[in-house]
Amino acid sequence: MAIKFTDLDKTTTFAELAVLQPAVLKKELTNTRVEAYSIPAGGSLNFNYAASPVYETHIELLQKLADEQQVIEKYHEVASGSVMNTGESRKVLHHLTRGKLSADVIEDDIDLERFYASQLKRLDSFSDQVHSGVIKGSTGKAFDTVVQIGIGGSDLGPRALYLALEGIMTTQKMKAEFISNVDPDDAAAVLRRVDPETTLFILVSKSGTTQETLTNRDLVLQKVAAKNIKGFNPSKHMVAVTSNSSPLASSDDNLESFFIDNYIGGRYSSTSAVGGLVLSLAFGVDTFKDLLGGAHEADAQALHQDIKKNAALMDALIGLYQRNVLDLRTTAILPYSQALSRFPAHLQQLDMESNGKRVNRDGQPIDYKTGYTLFGEPGTNGQHSFYQHLHQGTDVTPLQFIGFSESQYQEDLIIDGSTSQQKLNANLAAQIIAFAKGQEHENLNKEFPGERYSTLIHGKQLTPRTLGALLAHFENKVMFQGFLWNVNSFDQEGVQLGKLLTSKVLSGDIDDSALVSFVELLS
Amino acid sequence: MAIKFTDLDKTTTFAELAVLQPAVLKKELTNTRVEAYSIPAGGSLNFNYAASPVYETHIELLQKLADEQQVIEKYHEVASGSVMNTGESRKVLHHLTRGKLSADVIEDDIDLERFYASQLKRLDSFSDQVHSGVIKGSTGKAFDTVVQIGIGGSDLGPRALYLALEGIMTTQKMKAEFISNVDPDDAAAVLRRVDPETTLFILVSKSGTTQETLTNRDLVLQKVAAKNIKGFNPSKHMVAVTSNSSPLASSDDNLESFFIDNYIGGRYSSTSAVGGLVLSLAFGVDTFKDLLGGAHEADAQALHQDIKKNAALMDALIGLYQRNVLDLRTTAILPYSQALSRFPAHLQQLDMESNGKRVNRDGQPIDYKTGYTLFGEPGTNGQHSFYQHLHQGTDVTPLQFIGFSESQYQEDLIIDGSTSQQKLNANLAAQIIAFAKGQEHENLNKEFPGERYSTLIHGKQLTPRTLGALLAHFENKVMFQGFLWNVNSFDQEGVQLGKLLTSKVLSGDIDDSALVSFVELLS
Repeated sequence: MAIKFTDLDKTTTFAELAVLQPAVLKKELTNTRVEAYSIPAGGSLNFNYAASPVYETHIELLQKLADEQQVIEKYHEVASGSVMNTGESRKVLHHLTRGKLSADVIEDDIDLERFYASQLKRLDSFSDQVHSGVIKGSTGKAFDTVVQIGIGGSDLGPRALYLALEGIMTTQKMKAEFISNVDPDDAAAVLRRVDPETTLFILVSKSGTTQETLTNRDLVLQKVAAKNIKGFNPSKHMVAVTSNSSPLASSDDNLESFFIDNYIGGRYSSTSAVGGLVLSLAFGVDTFKDLLGGAHEADAQALHQDIKKNAALMDALIGLYQRNVLDLRTTAILPYSQALSRFPAHLQQLDMESNGKRVNRDGQPIDYKTGYTLFGEPGTNGQHSFYQHLHQGTDVTPLQFIGFSESQYQEDLIIDGSTSQQKLNANLAAQIIAFAKGQEHENLNKEFPGERYSTLIHGKQLTPRTLGALLAHFENKVMFQGFLWNVNSFDQEGVQLGKLLTSKVLSGDIDDSALVSFVELLS
Repeated sequence: MAIKFTDLDKTTTFAELAVLQPAVLKKELTNTRVEAYSIPAGGSLNFNYAASPVYETHIELLQKLADEQQVIEKYHEVASGSVMNTGESRKVLHHLTRGKLSADVIEDDIDLERFYASQLKRLDSFSDQVHSGVIKGSTGKAFDTVVQIGIGGSDLGPRALYLALEGIMTTQKMKAEFISNVDPDDAAAVLRRVDPETTLFILVSKSGTTQETLTNRDLVLQKVAAKNIKGFNPSKHMVAVTSNSSPLASSDDNLESFFIDNYIGGRYSSTSAVGGLVLSLAFGVDTFKDLLGGAHEADAQALHQDIKKNAALMDALIGLYQRNVLDLRTTAILPYSQALSRFPAHLQQLDMESNGKRVNRDGQPIDYKTGYTLFGEPGTNGQHSFYQHLHQGTDVTPLQFIGFSESQYQEDLIIDGSTSQQKLNANLAAQIIAFAKGQEHENLNKEFPGERYSTLIHGKQLTPRTLGALLAHFENKVMFQGFLWNVNSFDQEGVQLGKLLTSKVLSGDIDDSALVSFVELLS
């Protein structure tokens, strides 16, 4: 079937969808619905949408919309290596870092799956040698710490995944730290905590030209040099993750370089060497492979044409209905798991950088809303922070809960008749119902309107495998929403103007009088 | 003058304001405006609103609205001890923890300023004795670590302030850790990092009944007991910060108790013993006193009737114009300072819990929007994450930038002709202009619409004093917006229903079939 690209408001289905009122949860939300509205999401996770605003009439139209927008066909195009990143004329191949979904992707006689697999093998072998002490620091000490220097996609995803796995990995091999901000205090704080002699730095920049990352590399090198450690050789403490063609690729300043290519976007790069090297060094490569396995399962699950079997697509479609029909402008990510403390920050980049777009994939203006504002904090902490606004504020915020039956550390105790994990999940279940059904009260200050929508992704425990599936679920959801909105989810032209003006400021080449004034204010 | 309470849409000024178009920044934003639109904010900070959507016509009407809503008179009512928390029939006295703004506040013959000052003296003496080793752990070792156990206002503010000061305080006296989430993994992770023999735990709960906090206290005690440390006495390692009337107030299980009262709301409690004890233990009481001094300066600044001299009030009024006239639903907090990494999370509670309300202060329904969704991350990190959406997304998000001329650690180097701090601030200045003025381009994907509004709070360096002023600025802004919207910014009834349903789940007393099903899914 030929692939067509149609703006959302030009589809025949959207007009039908736009007149549908939301499901009334106070009436609809029963145990029957909780049991029925559940879809496997890969990695033993399930996506439950019982507390979302859709019922069968919506689902039929959402299916029709997905079919009309050829969402699954477009996913196959991505998987088989079509140039789906139109703005930058690139393939989109992050799925291939965790396994093949389609025909081989060949370019210049190279099978790109094998290229990614070969990089995985290289980092497997490298991390093994670091762990076994074959590769040591320049002063003869074993490495016990890894510091990732990167920003944006080279930082948020890997850092969120590292924090998510610290609790479950009782046999952590190396401690990891991250330096991202060009604020010199970021590097200064990390450098106070680490011993250069036992530290391996990973420099992560696809282009090899990221201002923050190169500055921090140089800052770290100069700081370490200033310590005058006898016999210390910085090039034996620095590895790079970059593209083949970058200035960092074959630098003598690095012990080793690992490669990604232009088909892995920064915010989709956690399952490439960008996330793989730091996670393999910290936890061993098998942990990273488990994560890839979970992600691949979720990717395969997302190939279903039937939206009742495709968690990521159902999630995407519900989000679209909330955004474009109900005019809701925000979404909160609420993991009831402290280990996922920085996962919302990663999803914030993934979602807002991918779909915060005002032109379609062909660069034509569009006349409907695209990506929403995404934010979140772990529960139950958020309950004692912004939930007041979510329950009783004047805007409705759709909620995405995440929960697990078991804790990670498994160091739990019964206090007042229940474990902490039971308390945590009692809170989570109670919140879903409180948001959906509200509470009448004669004192309006104690009344809860209800009809505040949520979905729930849940599993037995947050492990490398479930984490991989969770990551891929959201990546695929974002990609599907991009297809539905007909935007290019894989470029980020909106970051360019700030870079341009910054370099003008730094080179003293500014003609805007207000910009001159602001620079002076901050000098 | 008699104080009247009027809903925003019943004021005469709002109708006039509602028809005003925003300033066109592409035209208006020049160096003259940057120099003119600046207000001292206390603690040597300045609030610059040159890139906000107002000009003189707006300012006149905003002044008129502030006068009509008697904002400053209401602030005086707060300061002098009127019962301004209507829902809970309480005074609102957090300003008094940093100094008097008005007449004495006397209750039951007690001067409440002296009460807060006496608690400050007690924690001064206590932290001195801990630092000097007069107070030691039960096994004879000096305390080197403090762990605050608290959630919401007992966690977010103190934690954000602690992180904000770590870099500037080269002589840190004790390391601080925080346990908040009822997720058992939160306590487990912290307990792995600390040595009970040298750790002092601070239990923070005003009511003395917070589920998460009491559970974590018991979890910590049982975990520590299980270590069978010879001679270890847990009551010598635990202090409480609570109200006079709480069950924790005179517990034999605690080495010492420090008091707040019902007039200090959780999210406004950072300048009471809730923040004061942990900060004094970590950095010494003088640091905390400097912070109080900066906050008091900002409080005094906020008493100006003239909005051109009142940074917090101008900020509040611009926010109201953006929210209620321009229909913008979100605000991003963007500190160009890694030390402020968790400051947006604190402001998220402060703002969304205070003003996410759908009834007025008398419990009557209102027919206009109140508190917005607030989120944020430090720059430049955010630039590589969600700025794409901010620049080119289909919604406009008002931005609140924060910046400082100097770094904290002062460990900076010139790389490629500029220091990291210069690069950081070049980015900040460039972003303000990029958002305000945009860029035309024949390729629409590279076009930036501009007219995306921001304000800037800036100062020389992030010190205890500037941090105190920054904190108070936002507290006062939020309070002023509450007056303008005629809501009670000091209660939080929206958190009650979730608590109620949670306790029903834990006691097995549920009749909602969907709730039963969700509990099972998570078991």
